Amino acid sequence: MKTPQLTPLAASLPATVPFVGPEAQERQSGQPFVARLGANESAFGPSPKAIAAMQEAVKDVWMYADPESHNLRQALARHHAIPAETIMVGEGIDTLLGLAVRLYVGPGDHAVTSAGAYPTFNYHVAGFGGTLHAVPYKDDHEDPDSLIAKAVEVGAKMIYIANPDNPMGSYHDADAITRMIDRLPDDCMLILDEAYIELAPDGTAPDITLTRPNLLRMRTFSKAFGMAGARVGYAISTPQLISGFNKVRNHFGMSRISQAGALAAIADTEWITHIRQEVTTARARIAQIATENSLRALPSATNFVTIDCGRDGAFARAVLAALIQRAIFVRMPFVAPQDRCIRVSCGPSVQLDAFAAALPAALKQAHAEFE
Amino acid sequence: MKTPQLTPLAASLPATVPFVGPEAQERQSGQPFVARLGANESAFGPSPKAIAAMQEAVKDVWMYADPESHNLRQALARHHAIPAETIMVGEGIDTLLGLAVRLYVGPGDHAVTSAGAYPTFNYHVAGFGGTLHAVPYKDDHEDPDSLIAKAVEVGAKMIYIANPDNPMGSYHDADAITRMIDRLPDDCMLILDEAYIELAPDGTAPDITLTRPNLLRMRTFSKAFGMAGARVGYAISTPQLISGFNKVRNHFGMSRISQAGALAAIADTEWITHIRQEVTTARARIAQIATENSLRALPSATNFVTIDCGRDGAFARAVLAALIQRAIFVRMPFVAPQDRCIRVSCGPSVQLDAFAAALPAALKQAHAEFE
Repeated sequence: MKTPQLTPLAASLPATVPFVGPEAQERQSGQPFVARLGANESAFGPSPKAIAAMQEAVKDVWMYADPESHNLRQALARHHAIPAETIMVGEGIDTLLGLAVRLYVGPGDHAVTSAGAYPTFNYHVAGFGGTLHAVPYKDDHEDPDSLIAKAVEVGAKMIYIANPDNPMGSYHDADAITRMIDRLPDDCMLILDEAYIELAPDGTAPDITLTRPNLLRMRTFSKAFGMAGARVGYAISTPQLISGFNKVRNHFGMSRISQAGALAAIADTEWITHIRQEVTTARARIAQIATENSLRALPSATNFVTIDCGRDGAFARAVLAALIQRAIFVRMPFVAPQDRCIRVSCGPSVQLDAFAAALPAALKQAHAEFE
Repeated sequence: MKTPQLTPLAASLPATVPFVGPEAQERQSGQPFVARLGANESAFGPSPKAIAAMQEAVKDVWMYADPESHNLRQALARHHAIPAETIMVGEGIDTLLGLAVRLYVGPGDHAVTSAGAYPTFNYHVAGFGGTLHAVPYKDDHEDPDSLIAKAVEVGAKMIYIANPDNPMGSYHDADAITRMIDRLPDDCMLILDEAYIELAPDGTAPDITLTRPNLLRMRTFSKAFGMAGARVGYAISTPQLISGFNKVRNHFGMSRISQAGALAAIADTEWITHIRQEVTTARARIAQIATENSLRALPSATNFVTIDCGRDGAFARAVLAALIQRAIFVRMPFVAPQDRCIRVSCGPSVQLDAFAAALPAALKQAHAEFE
C-alpha cells in the first residue's frame, strides 16, 4: 500500500536527537541524578523577581502571549540601548538558529562551523538541506581565521561561532571577533552565539551597537539568567534582517509565562552580578577538584568548566560513563581532540560536593579499564 | 554592497502575520480591551490543579524540559488508552502543523484546505514552498467531499480539516469524518485538527484508536484546557509517522512549566466537565445577545459562537471595527461568504455583558455607514 511520502529532504534526515536529556538517562538507569551538571543549566536559579513574575503570570496563561513580545523587546532595547527593531525574541536560541538557517541556507548552500561546536546548528543545516563544513579548533579555541578561510573557499552563506565557546569554555576578546566580522565576505552571514556572554570577562563582546547586514547575534535567558526551561532567546541584527524572521517564525510560539519571567529577569541586574560571583566561585571549586585528581581544568569564560582528563576520547568517555553510573550528570565534547575532556557545569556547593565525591572512584574505574 | 541572500523560497515569502494580536490592537488604540473574546481563548482559565502545578514548576525552570515529554506522553497515553509511541507533544498545534508540512510538503507539492479555514496551515504550506488549493465551505461547514475531490484532482500530499471547524463553529459527526478518512488517497495525508474536540457533542471524534499511516490528528491544551499561553499541543498517528517528527523538531523546545501544567490538566477531568457547562451557558448567552439584536447565531460545537450579521463582508467588517472601537476584542472569518459573520469567544458573564452592552451601538454605527 502506498503511504504519504516524506519530502526527499525529510526522507534523507535521520531521526537524531542533538542531545539525550538527563531525564531519559535517569529512566534508563532507574536512578535519579544526585548532581545535574551536564547541560550548563544554572542551578543557582533565576532572579527571585523573575520567579515571582512567572508565578504571577500563571493566572493569565489562558491568554496567548503577545506575538510581538513588545514589552520584552522594549525592555531589551532599553537594557542594551539599541532600537527594538533590531531585536527578535524567540523560543530560545535553538529556535532562532533554526529560523536563521531556514531563511538563508537551502539545498546547494554551504555553512561553516568548528568541528565539535554546538551541534544544534549542524542539525538545522542538515534539516534544511545545506552542506556543512567543519574546521578544527585551535588550542581549544574556535578559530576565526580558519572559519573565514573555509567560508571563502566554499562560498558559504553562513558561519557559526560561539563566543564564549561551548563546549570548551574558551573565548576571544571583542577585538578578535570584530576583526573576524570585518573580514567576513559581504554575502556571508556570521551567527555570533553569545549564549554565555554575561559570564565572560568584560571586553569579550563587541559593542552591542555593532550591527552589520551580515551579522546575527544571539543571546539567551537559559544560562546566566537561569531560565533554560522557559525557552526565551533573542537575536540582534539590522532591522531588515530581523524583520525577515516574520516570514517564517511561529508568531504565537512564545509562552506568556516565559515572557513575563524574562521581562523581570532583564531588569534585575543585581541578580546577574550575584550569578557572576557564584559562577566565579564554582569555576574555582571545579578547577580545585580537577587539580586534586591530577587533572587540568581549562580556563572558562562560561558557567561550566571543561576538564582535560589527560588521555584520549575513549578514556574521557569511560570517565563520563563512570560518573553517570554514580548519578553525576555531566557531558563531554563530541570531537577529537576536544573529546579528551569532560564538561562540568557550575552549580551550588552541594552539587559540586557530589561531583568531588564521585570523581576519584570514577577515574579509578576508568584507569582500570585502560590498564 | 552585496549582502547575505535569503533562499529563493524565503525571498518569495511576505513578512506576514497570520493574526494581529490583541495587544498590538491595544497599543494602536491606546485603550485596553474590556472584553477579550477574539482568539477563542478560555477566559474560564485552566484547572486550578494546573495553575498550582505551573506555579510549583516555576522553581524548576532553571532546568531544560525533558525533550521527550515522557511523563506527559505517558499521561496522554493513559488518558486516551493509546500507546505513547503514537503521541508527539509539541509547542502548540501551530508548531506541530509547521513540522508536519515541513516533513511532507515541499516545492512542487500540493495541499488542500477550505477557503477561509485556519490560516496558519496556509502560512506553513507557503513557508515550505507548497501550492495550496482551497475549496469552498458548504452551508458553513468544511466539505469533506470537495476536499477529497480536489486532493485527487491535484494529487495533493496533504489535506487540512478542522473538526469542529474554526471559524464557523460547525462540525461533522464521527461517521462523516471516518468516511472521509476511508476515501483518502493512500498517499495523501489528512491533518485532522481537533483543537476544539473536548467542547463538541459526544460522537464528533472518530474513535481515538483510529490510526492510519495517512492520518495525523492534532489536539491542544489551548482551548478547553485554558492554557493558550503555555503552548502545549499533541499529535496522534502511527508510531512510524510520529517518530518522523524527531527528524526536524526542536527537541528542547518545550517549556518545563507548560509540561507540568498539561500533566496536571489532563488528569483533572472534572474541570473539563465544568468547562463544558460554562461553554454551553456562554454559547446560549451569545446566541441570546445575537437574537436581541436581530442577528442569527450559528450553531456551535466549540468555545465560540459565529454570528451572522445578515449582510456582506463589508458590513460585518464595519460591525467588527465598531466593536473594537468600543474595546471589545472579537474577530471574524476572512473569506466570503463566511465573512458575513463575526466570531465571539465564550467567556465569563462579565465579558459577555460588555459585548452585549457594546453590540447595539456597534450595529447602529455599521448600519449608518451602509445606509
